[in-house]
Amino acid sequence: MGTPSKFVTFIRNAYLDSSQLAIKIREEKEEKGIFKDVTKVNPASLDLVFNPRTVALIGASENELKSGGMFLNSFIDCGLKSELFLVNPRGGEIRGLKVYPSVLDIPKEIDLAVIAIPASVTPKAVEDCSKKGAKFIVVHAAGFGEMGPEGKKIEEKMMQTARRGGSRIIGPNCMGIYCPETGFNTVVPYIGGLTEESGDVALVAQSGWVCEHVMLIGYERGLRFSKVLSIGNQSDLTFVDFLEYLGSDPKTNIISAYIEGVKKGRDLIDVAKKISRKKPIIIWKAGRTGAGTKAITSHTGSLAGDHTIHENAFKQAGIITAQGIEELLDLLIAFKSPYLPKGNKVGIIVGAGGAGVAAADACETLGLKVANLPEGTRLELKDLLRGVIPPFSGVSNPVDTVWLPLGQAPSIHPQMIETMSRAVDAFMIFSYEPYGENYLSVLAKTREKIKKPIVCVPPHPTKGLDTTPWTKRGLPVYPTPKRAARALSALAQRHVFLEKLKK
Amino acid sequence: MGTPSKFVTFIRNAYLDSSQLAIKIREEKEEKGIFKDVTKVNPASLDLVFNPRTVALIGASENELKSGGMFLNSFIDCGLKSELFLVNPRGGEIRGLKVYPSVLDIPKEIDLAVIAIPASVTPKAVEDCSKKGAKFIVVHAAGFGEMGPEGKKIEEKMMQTARRGGSRIIGPNCMGIYCPETGFNTVVPYIGGLTEESGDVALVAQSGWVCEHVMLIGYERGLRFSKVLSIGNQSDLTFVDFLEYLGSDPKTNIISAYIEGVKKGRDLIDVAKKISRKKPIIIWKAGRTGAGTKAITSHTGSLAGDHTIHENAFKQAGIITAQGIEELLDLLIAFKSPYLPKGNKVGIIVGAGGAGVAAADACETLGLKVANLPEGTRLELKDLLRGVIPPFSGVSNPVDTVWLPLGQAPSIHPQMIETMSRAVDAFMIFSYEPYGENYLSVLAKTREKIKKPIVCVPPHPTKGLDTTPWTKRGLPVYPTPKRAARALSALAQRHVFLEKLKK
Repeated sequence: MGTPSKFVTFIRNAYLDSSQLAIKIREEKEEKGIFKDVTKVNPASLDLVFNPRTVALIGASENELKSGGMFLNSFIDCGLKSELFLVNPRGGEIRGLKVYPSVLDIPKEIDLAVIAIPASVTPKAVEDCSKKGAKFIVVHAAGFGEMGPEGKKIEEKMMQTARRGGSRIIGPNCMGIYCPETGFNTVVPYIGGLTEESGDVALVAQSGWVCEHVMLIGYERGLRFSKVLSIGNQSDLTFVDFLEYLGSDPKTNIISAYIEGVKKGRDLIDVAKKISRKKPIIIWKAGRTGAGTKAITSHTGSLAGDHTIHENAFKQAGIITAQGIEELLDLLIAFKSPYLPKGNKVGIIVGAGGAGVAAADACETLGLKVANLPEGTRLELKDLLRGVIPPFSGVSNPVDTVWLPLGQAPSIHPQMIETMSRAVDAFMIFSYEPYGENYLSVLAKTREKIKKPIVCVPPHPTKGLDTTPWTKRGLPVYPTPKRAARALSALAQRHVFLEKLKK
Repeated sequence: MGTPSKFVTFIRNAYLDSSQLAIKIREEKEEKGIFKDVTKVNPASLDLVFNPRTVALIGASENELKSGGMFLNSFIDCGLKSELFLVNPRGGEIRGLKVYPSVLDIPKEIDLAVIAIPASVTPKAVEDCSKKGAKFIVVHAAGFGEMGPEGKKIEEKMMQTARRGGSRIIGPNCMGIYCPETGFNTVVPYIGGLTEESGDVALVAQSGWVCEHVMLIGYERGLRFSKVLSIGNQSDLTFVDFLEYLGSDPKTNIISAYIEGVKKGRDLIDVAKKISRKKPIIIWKAGRTGAGTKAITSHTGSLAGDHTIHENAFKQAGIITAQGIEELLDLLIAFKSPYLPKGNKVGIIVGAGGAGVAAADACETLGLKVANLPEGTRLELKDLLRGVIPPFSGVSNPVDTVWLPLGQAPSIHPQMIETMSRAVDAFMIFSYEPYGENYLSVLAKTREKIKKPIVCVPPHPTKGLDTTPWTKRGLPVYPTPKRAARALSALAQRHVFLEKLKK
């Protein structure tokens, strides 16, 4: 890519100008060398956050209603692979594990400390962890910067303390880490038996609620995660740090985030630009409205910034934006498709006319084109469908296979798709066929032949339908044509972005 | 309401001017008295469509893969209350029922004939039904007006034939009728054991696919239907006829529709205006885009008309528009709420900050206001929550009950809602509380005290969650804050419409 266009420069500058006061103050302090460690964190070192050799749980408790008890349970249930040390001034033993009165008593180096005690006593615990030289500290408690200037002061002092010992902070006001590979899960610790299956999707979110919903609904819909991180107030380590880390993480192919306030705006855009060449980045940026922005302040103390500026800057950096949790999930599932459409022409196969109308409307509303099939293709389709569907069917796109008898889709659809694929860049397929292994593997094989994305809308999306195998095979399934079209439009947008990079 | 404003008149005229050519031609023919029955159908007489004393199934078959076999099965499975007569030239017996070679051989008057044979032989069957004096004829086959001018000619001739005998046609190219009360179901006949439970929601749709999806997903989400009707090409009876009927149907409280082309645009607006004073009308009008419009032509042969004109005219007539099947369902569920918000101020209670941000954003994006709580209310809330939630919680709207212990919501939420209800018009409630009968009945009782709508977003909407009892109790549940906000905005829109009528 050459020099940025005037427009890009304008947007970028406008974006950078919106950097928030609080951050600016902090960065100035950093420049003055107040902190021991003023250098940027080395992204590779963040691997220790998800895969610590040793973990200290400060505030370990028998009581499962307290975070220190909940987290402990979760570490045991999920089979945490790190060496675990419990800390509680009362000492003794919990669930057969020795409890150290202070983190300073632990006879080993600590890679990661999880502080799960109330805000009032947290700064002291951070101080101890810092003295101990813990490499990373997850500060769980709320009640800091999001409470206003006074809380912000405590938060900054806490961070300063941590850095004196070389520790870096995640949080405060966060739910911490989920990494199935290492059995680490403080994000949804109350869900017994949450999968230990790893995947290639990463999520960083300021909100624990978003982490939880994306993980749980995502899991039901077939997504598997490499890493999920709730970062709360981002007082020290920010989304940008983790974005950079995930960009190089071999276990992560798709990166997603929910952010309330953008810290280090300049870095975010630069880092995102580099990473989005290799991996899709999907971001739900909250704070579109005044009330949303106000709610953000009391949630994580972030400054939301101007929404339009964010969206434009994001777009220039190749970031795909999602609005809301459902769209974020829909797009994550879309990017499980191993192929991108090389243009915006969609081929639609339906089993009922109404679906075709809805699909065509949904596609074109989002800037996709319902391809006009060339005469030759239409005649071929007609031949293919002769004797299978009523002779009056029009075989123009959307192709309506009215009353295609059950059981025929696995043989007819692949042929139709192959024929149409000469004229289209992507497919949306509706079928009355049961969504079993047979139909799935036939479609997956066809997709490998044509190397174009196929998204599906099932017959009547009942609660019982398990779309997990479909997601895993990169055949995204959506309950409605509208959401299927949105998926295709995001894939098409990514193709355009990648093509522009080549120029 | 006084005389319509200039703007209204302008929009209305523009709308009426867009009446479609095909309709115009037909109406001219009607004026020339070509048809025996040129008068408008008496809406009350349409009751016979859903509750016929006698039904003739033309094309009855043993073969369940043929429509005539599928429908027969369905009549038996669903316990059709009408007297059923089977017709097939082969005569004999099917499933213990006598088969008449012709409809003319049936020894009784026929209220409703369902013709389930291919298009090529359908006109002859219509002729016979007309000779027999069948009051209504459902023409199932596709292959008529949607196939172009020639098909349109056959369709018109068929209609003309029917009217000569006084019969009125539903369809062609339609899936017919679902009326659980009378055990009539040709819409999703292949679903064994579809509920016989009746409800108060009616749906009229040109597309059988839409009927099927709305019924099946709607059922799963707790909607129960009074009547569902797939009307296909609307060659004779149109949406307007059924809208008028449903407006007076005591079993129907909420009316919904999916339409591709508006026939009798002038009548639609006039009828809708009258009915929407009493019952909400929610319409998904397809054909927003060029491709959608094209797909409509080959689906039901309708002319879609200008979308903006439709939307404006609809709004003036108090019609609520939905875009897509999911929104249609979301709004139907919204209107199960027995109360409308008397203003646009929303109160939001969350159990986690991220949810509050998402909810606030979603509400304000749709024109709702996240109410500023007066000082007094906030102090009262603070008192209420003292000792229950951490002291740092801000208790401004959205009110964040961070870490409200499980089991406390059923006692705390009602008090919070009552306190806040002085300052807000509607509620969006998030909770980690299990969505069981206890929490449900407590919320329902509170709603009866405050007489304001409450919509809910459950903790982590897993597939296993049954929202049916919630829908039935008029406490709409949505998987995301965005969809919950859309529901509230539709309820608020209806309140504004009804208030304007009073002026």
